[in-house]
Amino acid sequence: MTPILWLDGCLRPAGEARVDPGDRGLLLGDGLFETICVRGGRALRLEAHFARLRAGADILGLPVPAGDDALADALEQVVRANGLADAAVRLTLTAGPGPRGLPRPVPPRPTLLLTAGPLPPPPPPARLLVARTTRRNEHSPLSRVKSLNYLDSILARREAAAAGADDAVLLNTAGRVAEASAANLFLRLDCGWVTPPVSEGALPGTMRAVLAEAWDAAERPVTVADLHRADAIVLTTALGVREVAGLLSDTALPPGAPPLSSSGSPR
Amino acid sequence: MTPILWLDGCLRPAGEARVDPGDRGLLLGDGLFETICVRGGRALRLEAHFARLRAGADILGLPVPAGDDALADALEQVVRANGLADAAVRLTLTAGPGPRGLPRPVPPRPTLLLTAGPLPPPPPPARLLVARTTRRNEHSPLSRVKSLNYLDSILARREAAAAGADDAVLLNTAGRVAEASAANLFLRLDCGWVTPPVSEGALPGTMRAVLAEAWDAAERPVTVADLHRADAIVLTTALGVREVAGLLSDTALPPGAPPLSSSGSPR
Repeated sequence: MTPILWLDGCLRPAGEARVDPGDRGLLLGDGLFETICVRGGRALRLEAHFARLRAGADILGLPVPAGDDALADALEQVVRANGLADAAVRLTLTAGPGPRGLPRPVPPRPTLLLTAGPLPPPPPPARLLVARTTRRNEHSPLSRVKSLNYLDSILARREAAAAGADDAVLLNTAGRVAEASAANLFLRLDCGWVTPPVSEGALPGTMRAVLAEAWDAAERPVTVADLHRADAIVLTTALGVREVAGLLSDTALPPGAPPLSSSGSPR
Repeated sequence: MTPILWLDGCLRPAGEARVDPGDRGLLLGDGLFETICVRGGRALRLEAHFARLRAGADILGLPVPAGDDALADALEQVVRANGLADAAVRLTLTAGPGPRGLPRPVPPRPTLLLTAGPLPPPPPPARLLVARTTRRNEHSPLSRVKSLNYLDSILARREAAAAGADDAVLLNTAGRVAEASAANLFLRLDCGWVTPPVSEGALPGTMRAVLAEAWDAAERPVTVADLHRADAIVLTTALGVREVAGLLSDTALPPGAPPLSSSGSPR
């Protein structure tokens, strides 16, 4: 079955859908996105995703060309059109086409694109590498936006893969832990859960918010030494929670992080 | 006349050309570009542009799907197809389409796109603002790559425009001067020219290289205080050199930077 996508109000076979070669999302990374987990036809944490989308669009100065109800409707359409009950939906908003140069056309004509694919199977516990190639810029408001500027994460992930690791930990420019290449990090330290604050360069993940509350996690700066002494580490994304098997070229963590059910009452 | 572009080997009217909505350039900013100045049908500093493109593609781990001769031929085709003698050509290389997630497909199928437009007229001297919104990340190799991740520059330029300035100076994470939003900076200081080194977060601009040699410029860290005490500042891009009229909300620079012809023998 050929995938169907939703582009600016219309459902189309992906192979026929056309993005303008002048789209600023393509030329300048001028846009942002959300990845949304759908289970049994129901989109999870949808309010949080839309709130983050709007907060990010505000930071970028981009209008969101649809209300929450219309966005939810488009999401439902694209999931149904692909015959999926469980799905990973990506909602991408770009500044749309424009002439050469940094300033956006006035008014902008944003591009809104939704795609849906099957949910990936739960991945095995991850072996992590602390990336040396690049750093996450906590001095940029983009560290708080799920923007289209993902090259630092791509470079870090490539470094991890080249070393035989599954994911990379990105440090911020101060050398402290920010997040993984496309996931937030929680550490089990001194019998409690800890996660780096957004001010340290961590993306405000939707799953991060849920678990920070459920686990009564402390938001505080995390060092590489903390990674090494942690009793467990987990990676969180909108699609789920992944255990960490260990840090590569380093003392392995105790095999397997504690199951989620056992971690509801730390501290 | 409708613009003609060159996309993966074919000339097409821009309105008919289609970029795949799954292109990683669009979804993740996974790619890089060059802006090349063409005068009288001749592309300027072409060797330097191709060398930087290849150096950047190496850093990103992207193959460049054509040799220099083929790239030069595509450039000539797109300029001619648009009936231009003087032109600004943009060459964009992306990692091409791929499935969801950070890892690229193996092998990648890169997208190569060339567009040509008329050269913009020389802009008036710029009023600059030192951006407070964001910082340029000198800890990332991307600061040396003309990548598709341009949102920090877009944010800085928006801040400048909102304040009535023409361009923004981006500081690095250490608070020193890196470059303008899409241009390198040269300062006239103590009777010599100075420009921030690439290690400070300055993109290795093609015009920067030419002028650094022509002006015997010193590459050394530049502070905001240096901006304030400079006798002149100029912005350089592949398309030309722009004088700086002054720093906004600050003591104006002496009106008009020295004409370029007077600056050939500094020190």
